[in-house]
Amino acid sequence: MTVAPAGLRLARIARLREGMVESGCDALLVTSLSNVAYLTGLFASAAGVVVTRDHCALITDGRYLGIARELVADLTGLELVITPASKPFDLAFAEALCRIEQGTAGFESVHFTVKRFADLETRLSAMAPGVRLLGVEGLVERLRVVKDDWELGVLSEAGGRLSEAAKCIIPKALAGMKEREVAAVIEAELRRVGFDKPAFDTIVAAGPNGAIPHYRAGDRVLASGDLVVLDFGGMFHGYAVDLTRTITLGPATARQQRLLEDVAAAQDAGFKAIRAGVPATDVDRATREAMAGAGLAEAFGHGTGHGLGLEVHERPRIAPARAELPAEPLEPGMVFTIEPGAYFPEWGGVRIEDDAAVTRTGAVWLTDVPRFWS
Amino acid sequence: MTVAPAGLRLARIARLREGMVESGCDALLVTSLSNVAYLTGLFASAAGVVVTRDHCALITDGRYLGIARELVADLTGLELVITPASKPFDLAFAEALCRIEQGTAGFESVHFTVKRFADLETRLSAMAPGVRLLGVEGLVERLRVVKDDWELGVLSEAGGRLSEAAKCIIPKALAGMKEREVAAVIEAELRRVGFDKPAFDTIVAAGPNGAIPHYRAGDRVLASGDLVVLDFGGMFHGYAVDLTRTITLGPATARQQRLLEDVAAAQDAGFKAIRAGVPATDVDRATREAMAGAGLAEAFGHGTGHGLGLEVHERPRIAPARAELPAEPLEPGMVFTIEPGAYFPEWGGVRIEDDAAVTRTGAVWLTDVPRFWS
Repeated sequence: MTVAPAGLRLARIARLREGMVESGCDALLVTSLSNVAYLTGLFASAAGVVVTRDHCALITDGRYLGIARELVADLTGLELVITPASKPFDLAFAEALCRIEQGTAGFESVHFTVKRFADLETRLSAMAPGVRLLGVEGLVERLRVVKDDWELGVLSEAGGRLSEAAKCIIPKALAGMKEREVAAVIEAELRRVGFDKPAFDTIVAAGPNGAIPHYRAGDRVLASGDLVVLDFGGMFHGYAVDLTRTITLGPATARQQRLLEDVAAAQDAGFKAIRAGVPATDVDRATREAMAGAGLAEAFGHGTGHGLGLEVHERPRIAPARAELPAEPLEPGMVFTIEPGAYFPEWGGVRIEDDAAVTRTGAVWLTDVPRFWS
Repeated sequence: MTVAPAGLRLARIARLREGMVESGCDALLVTSLSNVAYLTGLFASAAGVVVTRDHCALITDGRYLGIARELVADLTGLELVITPASKPFDLAFAEALCRIEQGTAGFESVHFTVKRFADLETRLSAMAPGVRLLGVEGLVERLRVVKDDWELGVLSEAGGRLSEAAKCIIPKALAGMKEREVAAVIEAELRRVGFDKPAFDTIVAAGPNGAIPHYRAGDRVLASGDLVVLDFGGMFHGYAVDLTRTITLGPATARQQRLLEDVAAAQDAGFKAIRAGVPATDVDRATREAMAGAGLAEAFGHGTGHGLGLEVHERPRIAPARAELPAEPLEPGMVFTIEPGAYFPEWGGVRIEDDAAVTRTGAVWLTDVPRFWS
């Protein structure tokens, strides 16, 4: 796996420090594993980062010693702390936060449980009574939402590979296979084109199953006449891409064809609405208006898309505006899906999903696969 | 997917109420999705349960309406609450907790973030000032640790299917394939024998990669002479099973064969130590002593096993005793892995893992696959 160059990772930590100053934090404990990966390049199941104004500690356990040592070698000012199995992991966080002796230690309140908070508070009050804990939100996520050129390169490459996989899978003779067998074919193809793993549980939903919003892949045998929703994605160098095509087995009926064309047109309308500076919710509105114009307002019961990056669902939110959420203007470097769908209980569903990146002058698709198959 | 019979789910909720009384809770908010699935049968990505002394509410969103309605139909006293997309999910939790008007509302402190807690506390103080929040731990988990006969049936069936998959995969001509291609073969086989999905990222670690504890599956081509660690599992009706075999490509060398036999003997020693009433840590000690007797104490750097159930890692903990953790005596119905391993950096590793269930008179294996292959 390739990770972002050391210079980029150092720059991310430097920008995080600016956010810490604005939030009044003298130190920050980062416990979201995606945020840890973003700052340090370490993808681990147990790790954390403690950033202060002049120091940064990457804390993990012995399983990651080899790779973590390589990663910090190029990062000036980054200390590696390996916790032995006999020591509670969170104690190492407390020790690293004590470095500031007094002041405000931020922690990620949406990535830290009440139990861990209570333990940390108890430890800190004994070890460093001058350190006060403060819950903060989104300090690393707001950096992650705009991809840098290295990340755009990875996502673009991943989008190309995902498209290649789709173009190999979709023309295969899928009729007669169970949904779960098709899912296995898709996941094998994802690995063949270079993905480390699927980005989420592959969806293969045939016939009426296409209308069940939480459906994955089951025992239905794909039959002639079925509409089949194929929704799959992969992780490539730690980044997620995501694609959906809805195919017909055999020639599409008039109703199927009309739906496919209407949903594709709504996706186009969403794409055309992308422009740096406009609120992300505008992309949803344009897509939704096109769906409504085709009489599909009721049938389109979910948001238009989601950001892509180290997580398969992240900012920006491409969905209707909500009073309690601040508007998020699009910026060049944001990457997200556009995936309108129409669902008819007992009958089936159509969804078409591609991945777009915002540019200075508009947007580009990262995925490139024909939208109509039969 | 089949779920536990309604009578069992009702009995689980009744037993949970006993635990609530002991903990001084008049209500309990359950937010762990595995715990929600255990109590109600609903496997969802957004759901919660609020249990009071005389009422129980299952809260989820419209995506799960159809399946949730079926699940609660047989559950007397269980109310289904579907939250519209326009309403913050946690508000529905607050409303359900208000039902008690005053008293103590427990929440799962290891499954609830500081952010959600702060929001809930703010809401409740406005809506029901007489309700006090109390963080509790393990009330549902301590029920889950002992499997009932229905669960043992599912896990036994799953263990049989996992063994069938292993016996099909391992004899295949794997030489010349990349690790990631072998992982794809394994995952396709898991689906073929009836698993809904892999239980975790499949590990295929060839040659020196077998010694890297966090390794998954990469680009190394399996070559003659390699030791290859294959670690895979599947989810079956919501329950996880897990198996590891280490194979040699071509005849084993003397060192490889000796290691395989020593690790298998340690696994046997762990299995023989299983008896209802003894501490779970005894299984680890017996395994570890056998490894030490073979000169492999240093090479065995992880715990002996982990509980299996709705999660692939759950209680009981089969690892060395730790001062801060209470002893957990084995009980009939507990299910866990025994997976000793020996790792030599730059050279490779051996791990052998099977799944065992504690019985009244000892234990039984749920998986049944030859331990030596070449």
